[in-house]
Amino acid sequence: MAILSVAEAEKIILQHAFSPAGEEVELAHTLGRILQEELTADRDFPPFDRVTMDGIAIRHAQFAEGCRQFPICGVQAAGKPRLTLTDPAGCMEVMTGAMLPEGADTVIRYEDVRIENGSAAVLCSGVNFRQNLHFQGIDRRTGDIIVQRGQKIGPAEIATAATVGKTRLRVARLPRTAIVSTGDELVPVGQTPLPHQIRGSNVFAIRALLAEQFQADSQIFHYPDDPKAIAKGLEQIFGDFDLVILSGAVSEGKFDFLPQVLASLGVEKLFHKVSQRPGKPFWFGQLPGRAVVFALPGNPVSAFMCVCRYLLPFLRRSLGQTPRPPEIASLAEQVVFKPALTYFLPVRLECTAGGMLQAQPLPGHGSGDLANLNDADGFLELPLERDVFLAREVFPFYRYR
Amino acid sequence: MAILSVAEAEKIILQHAFSPAGEEVELAHTLGRILQEELTADRDFPPFDRVTMDGIAIRHAQFAEGCRQFPICGVQAAGKPRLTLTDPAGCMEVMTGAMLPEGADTVIRYEDVRIENGSAAVLCSGVNFRQNLHFQGIDRRTGDIIVQRGQKIGPAEIATAATVGKTRLRVARLPRTAIVSTGDELVPVGQTPLPHQIRGSNVFAIRALLAEQFQADSQIFHYPDDPKAIAKGLEQIFGDFDLVILSGAVSEGKFDFLPQVLASLGVEKLFHKVSQRPGKPFWFGQLPGRAVVFALPGNPVSAFMCVCRYLLPFLRRSLGQTPRPPEIASLAEQVVFKPALTYFLPVRLECTAGGMLQAQPLPGHGSGDLANLNDADGFLELPLERDVFLAREVFPFYRYR
Repeated sequence: MAILSVAEAEKIILQHAFSPAGEEVELAHTLGRILQEELTADRDFPPFDRVTMDGIAIRHAQFAEGCRQFPICGVQAAGKPRLTLTDPAGCMEVMTGAMLPEGADTVIRYEDVRIENGSAAVLCSGVNFRQNLHFQGIDRRTGDIIVQRGQKIGPAEIATAATVGKTRLRVARLPRTAIVSTGDELVPVGQTPLPHQIRGSNVFAIRALLAEQFQADSQIFHYPDDPKAIAKGLEQIFGDFDLVILSGAVSEGKFDFLPQVLASLGVEKLFHKVSQRPGKPFWFGQLPGRAVVFALPGNPVSAFMCVCRYLLPFLRRSLGQTPRPPEIASLAEQVVFKPALTYFLPVRLECTAGGMLQAQPLPGHGSGDLANLNDADGFLELPLERDVFLAREVFPFYRYR
Repeated sequence: MAILSVAEAEKIILQHAFSPAGEEVELAHTLGRILQEELTADRDFPPFDRVTMDGIAIRHAQFAEGCRQFPICGVQAAGKPRLTLTDPAGCMEVMTGAMLPEGADTVIRYEDVRIENGSAAVLCSGVNFRQNLHFQGIDRRTGDIIVQRGQKIGPAEIATAATVGKTRLRVARLPRTAIVSTGDELVPVGQTPLPHQIRGSNVFAIRALLAEQFQADSQIFHYPDDPKAIAKGLEQIFGDFDLVILSGAVSEGKFDFLPQVLASLGVEKLFHKVSQRPGKPFWFGQLPGRAVVFALPGNPVSAFMCVCRYLLPFLRRSLGQTPRPPEIASLAEQVVFKPALTYFLPVRLECTAGGMLQAQPLPGHGSGDLANLNDADGFLELPLERDVFLAREVFPFYRYR
């Protein structure tokens, strides 16, 4: 099989997106989830002609006829049933959020009146008909869609859901996700590695990326470089999980037997290797009709980049999230990259005083340079066809911070 | 007291930032928290001369002298103690992530050799001294700071913490936060409002904004428009919480007795009213030496905007988060706003093909237009001094999505 381009790999991955069922979740726990229903107005927004300033409500015709002194006939508070201004020449004190009293049509704020002896004197000359009111249904009408299905639920959506009386929301169910590391060189975080060992970190980075983006809770596994142990472990995992993310053992090495093990378990290889740096040995497949398998390279920058570039878009598609156009950033300085590979360049993002997204290259020391990711904010995708990328040219930007 | 400008209000608020103690948290629960220690390299990064390609390791001098055939003396796997290439004319098979065998200095990838009868023939002509190696300490030296104190912990920081063996991290303790709504017009989400009532939503929006930004867990309270009930409730709250966010009852209305109630409880008013729309009635104070009080207007857009513009920066400062310059976006079309107020304009953000952050105005119908926030991504801050804001001019952008 020829090595795929980034675009080809992306296409195959998105073709294998899930269509997960929805689930009902309590409103307080929906933040960051993907909405699987529409939020519609259960009544008009606002539900009544609503006062927007504290002051007095009058009939504007009186003011137009020259009246400047209005006897106070009562107080219309917020949260109280609608009163009626029976005296057309009078006024009603009204509070922000209150219903406009029947018979009144205009509100003058307290700053523009003087109240003495039960009467309000208007001090300002200009009073517009229907001013300081938020009229019933002007924002939305009963039945209007306020939030579309596929929206990621943020604070504004939580507020709207509360307003329309949704104590629970239907959201996309998250795939049951397993994150698996392999490699005899890896020791647990709490352990002091021997000179030839390192602590495992990819599984934690991947779990954090999924948690941050989707509130996904993933389970972590580790297997030594032993095909039998891996096969036994994966067989179990394929029974319990929808999405299996592996890291390590997909390269050309003598101990990179993951592709063979996956084949022996019936996982269909959809591709192996993408013409990109980092992340060339990336393997992708599916157990027919069941788990989707991302087998990422073990190098920390490679695994991280593959998650940002492929796995997150795969999950957005799977969860039905409404796509938004990719971000575009401008190279702060010239970059030369000669290999015939798409180059995912770590960059630090700055917003210029002119409103431009500017990407400062932080090439680091290659796919093993984890520390470099702490200084960067994302990756710029520099196309395979070219070697020289000029300052101020713009490229797609994959943000992880 | 004169009405403050946005800049003056911001300055006073930031002067009252906390300096919270730190707390040790298990690594898996630190995502989104603010780091209160430095992450330093516990050993060199990488910790040994690390092979970056599967292939063979040789002594380059042999290649330089014309040798193209290297008998295989062994296999250096990742995670195995370092071997020695005793035969200077031989080679060792090496795997990605393995230690470079002693006596070898250069790696040739499998794609560029042919292995037959226990010997590797080099097929390529160009082999650079020390190629395909990631040398010990090239990324970071033992003791180097990799992540600074004050960094928000993201997936890359989780990975680095794991690599340097931190099973727990010291992070800024979150303030104990109470969010309090007042207003007789508000009914619970699960209830059907009468015509003059609405469901409360501000408290949920504020809680979600704090949860999303800081993983903060806030407690919600509601009091009716009754000064005695509010005073009694707040007295209790001031004993238990560091940060108290109120919404409603701060305007000029007859039932807006919150400023008086707060004064009666000994809360020092630091300001009341800011020359801005929405959010003019915003009140800010502190119970001396204790709780900081944000009393926000009850209108949903006002409360939401005040959180984005004032409360989130206050918390970033309080938690010691390293500041980053504000985002700047370009107006997509001309906007006219005549009142002598700073105008926080809801906008939808687009990233143009040229890498520009472009803000599409979504003025909506004022501070009560909650539904408008669902279409917007943030607020553009248009200065008080001007009335006309031209297309393509740039202004500070406060993102909430």
